[in-house]
Amino acid sequence: MSSSEVLENSAAMLTIDLSAITRNYQTLNNQSSGADCAAVVKANAYGLGMDQVAPAIFNHTNCKTFFVANLIEAVALRKLLPTAIIYVFNGLFTDQVETFIEHDIRPILNDLIQISLWDGCKHPCAIHFDTGINRLGLSKSDTDKFLNNKNNLNVSLVLSHLVRSEQPQHDTNKIQLETFKKITNELSDTPASLANSGGIYLGPDYHFDMVRPGIMLYGGNPGLDMRPGGLKDTIEIKAKILQIRHLSPGMSVGYDAIWTAEKSSRIALLNVGYADGTLKSSDKTSKVFLGGEFAPVIGKVSMDMIAIDISETKFDTITVTDFAEIIGSNITLEMASEVSTLGQYELLTGIGQRYTKNYKSGTLA
Amino acid sequence: MSSSEVLENSAAMLTIDLSAITRNYQTLNNQSSGADCAAVVKANAYGLGMDQVAPAIFNHTNCKTFFVANLIEAVALRKLLPTAIIYVFNGLFTDQVETFIEHDIRPILNDLIQISLWDGCKHPCAIHFDTGINRLGLSKSDTDKFLNNKNNLNVSLVLSHLVRSEQPQHDTNKIQLETFKKITNELSDTPASLANSGGIYLGPDYHFDMVRPGIMLYGGNPGLDMRPGGLKDTIEIKAKILQIRHLSPGMSVGYDAIWTAEKSSRIALLNVGYADGTLKSSDKTSKVFLGGEFAPVIGKVSMDMIAIDISETKFDTITVTDFAEIIGSNITLEMASEVSTLGQYELLTGIGQRYTKNYKSGTLA
Repeated sequence: MSSSEVLENSAAMLTIDLSAITRNYQTLNNQSSGADCAAVVKANAYGLGMDQVAPAIFNHTNCKTFFVANLIEAVALRKLLPTAIIYVFNGLFTDQVETFIEHDIRPILNDLIQISLWDGCKHPCAIHFDTGINRLGLSKSDTDKFLNNKNNLNVSLVLSHLVRSEQPQHDTNKIQLETFKKITNELSDTPASLANSGGIYLGPDYHFDMVRPGIMLYGGNPGLDMRPGGLKDTIEIKAKILQIRHLSPGMSVGYDAIWTAEKSSRIALLNVGYADGTLKSSDKTSKVFLGGEFAPVIGKVSMDMIAIDISETKFDTITVTDFAEIIGSNITLEMASEVSTLGQYELLTGIGQRYTKNYKSGTLA
Repeated sequence: MSSSEVLENSAAMLTIDLSAITRNYQTLNNQSSGADCAAVVKANAYGLGMDQVAPAIFNHTNCKTFFVANLIEAVALRKLLPTAIIYVFNGLFTDQVETFIEHDIRPILNDLIQISLWDGCKHPCAIHFDTGINRLGLSKSDTDKFLNNKNNLNVSLVLSHLVRSEQPQHDTNKIQLETFKKITNELSDTPASLANSGGIYLGPDYHFDMVRPGIMLYGGNPGLDMRPGGLKDTIEIKAKILQIRHLSPGMSVGYDAIWTAEKSSRIALLNVGYADGTLKSSDKTSKVFLGGEFAPVIGKVSMDMIAIDISETKFDTITVTDFAEIIGSNITLEMASEVSTLGQYELLTGIGQRYTKNYKSGTLA
């Protein structure tokens, strides 16, 4: 084993399947009734590494448009993808105009002040109309003012954002759709975009000219009853057994001694903890998968370590340095989030930096 | 403003006060009745950046001994600190022996197999005796075997770990202390270490030859009724107002519309979200501090954004691009953790990578 392999082998392992991400892109693209499918890669591609994820999508799919949250993410992405179209959700501020232009990045203008900052600029921009989420975007009155005033802007996209796209039956979706349609009818020459991941599965009415999936690219489910067919898990986290111990009844494990052995027990200590992001002290019923079986996490999650109960005979062959799956095909992100205080989005974006990272390309779609 | 300042200004800001960390080290060292005071810098110095934190401590205090979790952290630390003493908690595995020796890193041997792997080696090592936490370390029976067998080891430290050091009145502390004393009495020539941050405040009996604070170096409180006097906050997180909006009664904010305005309201959107680590969707009563006042976080925390209610007249002068404190001297880590599902340790180690980082040296202690 080489020296670098020895070091990598001393940490837990995070594998990111780039081909699963590009296949998810294709699935979402196929679902979008001919609309362009963009990719949201903000927050370091939802924690999975923008530097690997964005080029994989750009080079192996038809995706040419990417969304990030702020300008510093956009400039980093521009270095990776010299010819992609890049939009910045957070808007435009006085000090940023030159930098947007210099790097050919498109601001998403969220209010009339931002619009006036860009007015007269030949470079493309997007306009964000708020249709009910009341985060960023032009308010109703700003929208009316915008539509009634001729601006000298090169608008390449108008967009809005859904409040409850993961609840297909909720009236809010239809109300937002009708509000957005009234705006796009007045701007019929400009491409429009409404749907995030959940919005894609609300059907063709919601697709307009461009869809903007994020979480589903990465295998997450934004809250639909079931993750739509064809979408794949994209990450696997494995931790190594550092030590196996035998406990007598009455012996407890970990800080605060919140777990006590009721009978003679065999426990294993794994090299992953809350500093690695996906397991939290407040989780009550986490489990891991090893040797083809599920084993419960016991005691408090430590910063660098968890304990699991491997007393049952089915674990008799388990030994030190064996690996256990923390997240993967047996313990999906969805299952992990069900027992966590955190949602799937939070688990993804909270994945720690300590893992040995392994990017799997397989057959990129 | 330079181009790099423009980019830095597009993200939220994390300031880490290295001089507060070195002052905390001095406070803990002064509390340790003459024992050596080491520094625990695992998990990237509890999320604050080992590459900055460890050299600050090494160069500006008497600290010469550092603890990390795994070998990859240790080798990274060795590059930063060529002459420090570095211990690895996770133990020793067959493939690692040469790498430990090559980089002059000391394994903490946790069982008899690990001891046999190092036996005969002239390089120093530590032995971890479990006295009740039942994570890593020699079990009672392994301890007896070890004490009855002459090994050919250069043991520079024997250590154990407290289960409930943050509960000074709990019997567990005394039981662990007595158990550890029996071991150290048999190994009276070898320096010994029992106390983590909480253990330092259990008093001189717990200090032995070396104490090993972690969380308190970084300004956290492991769970004592009050953080001990003299310890300082070490981090400040500030987010920028991206947009201010006026809502009519009945309008809601954010995903799932969990907050609805009861009266005409003025809200601000800030450029920090759960991808940045310290605010979570499951938090119910988070607040931020701006313009000398506290303002409540409203609606669901988004990946890149939060909304706050600034309707009260005391916020009338607040405007776009103003900064709000998320964590700092007004909203301490302790206060942030009280309203979070996550503890102080988890908030620290979960601080995201997207911040513009600013290391403040001030007068290093």
